[in-house]
Amino acid sequence: MTRPVISTLAVIGVGLIGGSFSLALKAAGAVQRVIGYDQDPANLAEAVRLGVIDEAAADCITAVSGADVVFLAVPVRAMTAVVAVCAPHLPAGCIVTDGGSVKAELVSSCEQLLPDGCYFVGGHPIAGTENSGAGASFPELFQRRRCVLTPTSHTNHQALKLVRRLWEAAGSNVECMEPLTHDRVFAAVSHLPHLVAYALVHAVAGSAEEEENILAFSAGGFRDFTRIASSDPSMWRDIALMNRLPLLTLLERYQHEFATLKEKVASADGVWLEDYFTTSKRLRDEII
Amino acid sequence: MTRPVISTLAVIGVGLIGGSFSLALKAAGAVQRVIGYDQDPANLAEAVRLGVIDEAAADCITAVSGADVVFLAVPVRAMTAVVAVCAPHLPAGCIVTDGGSVKAELVSSCEQLLPDGCYFVGGHPIAGTENSGAGASFPELFQRRRCVLTPTSHTNHQALKLVRRLWEAAGSNVECMEPLTHDRVFAAVSHLPHLVAYALVHAVAGSAEEEENILAFSAGGFRDFTRIASSDPSMWRDIALMNRLPLLTLLERYQHEFATLKEKVASADGVWLEDYFTTSKRLRDEII
Repeated sequence: MTRPVISTLAVIGVGLIGGSFSLALKAAGAVQRVIGYDQDPANLAEAVRLGVIDEAAADCITAVSGADVVFLAVPVRAMTAVVAVCAPHLPAGCIVTDGGSVKAELVSSCEQLLPDGCYFVGGHPIAGTENSGAGASFPELFQRRRCVLTPTSHTNHQALKLVRRLWEAAGSNVECMEPLTHDRVFAAVSHLPHLVAYALVHAVAGSAEEEENILAFSAGGFRDFTRIASSDPSMWRDIALMNRLPLLTLLERYQHEFATLKEKVASADGVWLEDYFTTSKRLRDEII
Repeated sequence: MTRPVISTLAVIGVGLIGGSFSLALKAAGAVQRVIGYDQDPANLAEAVRLGVIDEAAADCITAVSGADVVFLAVPVRAMTAVVAVCAPHLPAGCIVTDGGSVKAELVSSCEQLLPDGCYFVGGHPIAGTENSGAGASFPELFQRRRCVLTPTSHTNHQALKLVRRLWEAAGSNVECMEPLTHDRVFAAVSHLPHLVAYALVHAVAGSAEEEENILAFSAGGFRDFTRIASSDPSMWRDIALMNRLPLLTLLERYQHEFATLKEKVASADGVWLEDYFTTSKRLRDEII
């Protein structure tokens, strides 16, 4: 085991992501002590009992007051409020980072909220499972997964370097991206597909009210295709709201594609359809 | 091995479906001899070489002329033409069945084309892989998979019973459904999802032209979600054209769902969005 990267890590929100970050850094010997806070007392007690964190704090102010690094892993829309509450109590030199899946608005708010001598670094680990809570966390969650850090012109280079080292210690491949670029990229590759799947489930379920056989035959392809529509509703509400503008651009683009496709089905344009499907196949094979 | 169900099976189109049907029935001892025809001479020769069929016919007329049962496994839009060519050469009592994924129009045409004393039974095995051709076929393809048969008021009961026995010998669970019901069900659970995925790939690829990072991050969820957009383009052109009317109903329903969802993102209606996503999750869990 190498020398720890930091002494004390505070994890605010000890769920799958926060808990797994703690476990990964502890397993790598990158941190000496992890103190956690969670608004659900039962989940927080479970985190201590399972050894996900070393110590539970009574509130988030207590959690951050002795921390070298604070990792925010609460729902993305709650982060700014947490930072606002904690900011006056951060020790000098403290680095605050997060695991939220939308970045531009959040990074900008957090940079403004932190006092001089404290440093914010936005982050987004591309990892997760279908489970949640401290009990679902495990140290290998981030192994060989990407983690996007989103520095800005205000970001402290030493702070960025340290946060990168922590994610690398957790096993991630770290990449940097501007916050707005991050949000545009994830609007396309993640947020749009989720909304497309949510609407698909509603459309098919609406048809199933008229045709009960649909229920029996909706396994197979439909099940695989709509797995992402079973994601956490409140998380996706937050993502849709916080990434609203880049997402709307994509939603409009999709509407346009779909309307053209429908028009060509309506006019039975076989040549166009085969060409469109061929291009889809080629584009997907290129993208992947 | 029990007594064979039939003596001679003719398979027209010795690809994944036709070849696997032959192999499954041979493995079950349900057929004595399989004669095949394929418009691709190399594929046909490969089918004989691999023992997928017992004998290759020079044309489809020769293939059907001594058959107890003819299984059509050519692309769905080519089937009617094949039946028109073969119909005058079918032996008395011959049963013609197919594996096409759209049924109403096809079943109606085939019933009209067959001479008196020959019997048509529509079928759709719900099975497949991402591979094609005789070399991709294997006897277990239909094991524990559903096969929908689509009898009408014109269907001969003995013919239906025999086709059911063949699919059961191939390992399938057979269900019957009216042709138009079949087409409505598959428009919802299969054809709509494919078109949704094709449009999604185009929308994301269009964005990738503006934002190259999208290419690097489109693995993971996007890859899984769009796997079905790599399906065979000419097959999906045929399905879109042959199931045009039921499909258009679903495309419109989807457009309406998506437009409402987009409007609620635009107006930042968090309560509505969370409720919509929660319902999606519940509906999907109920449907599956």
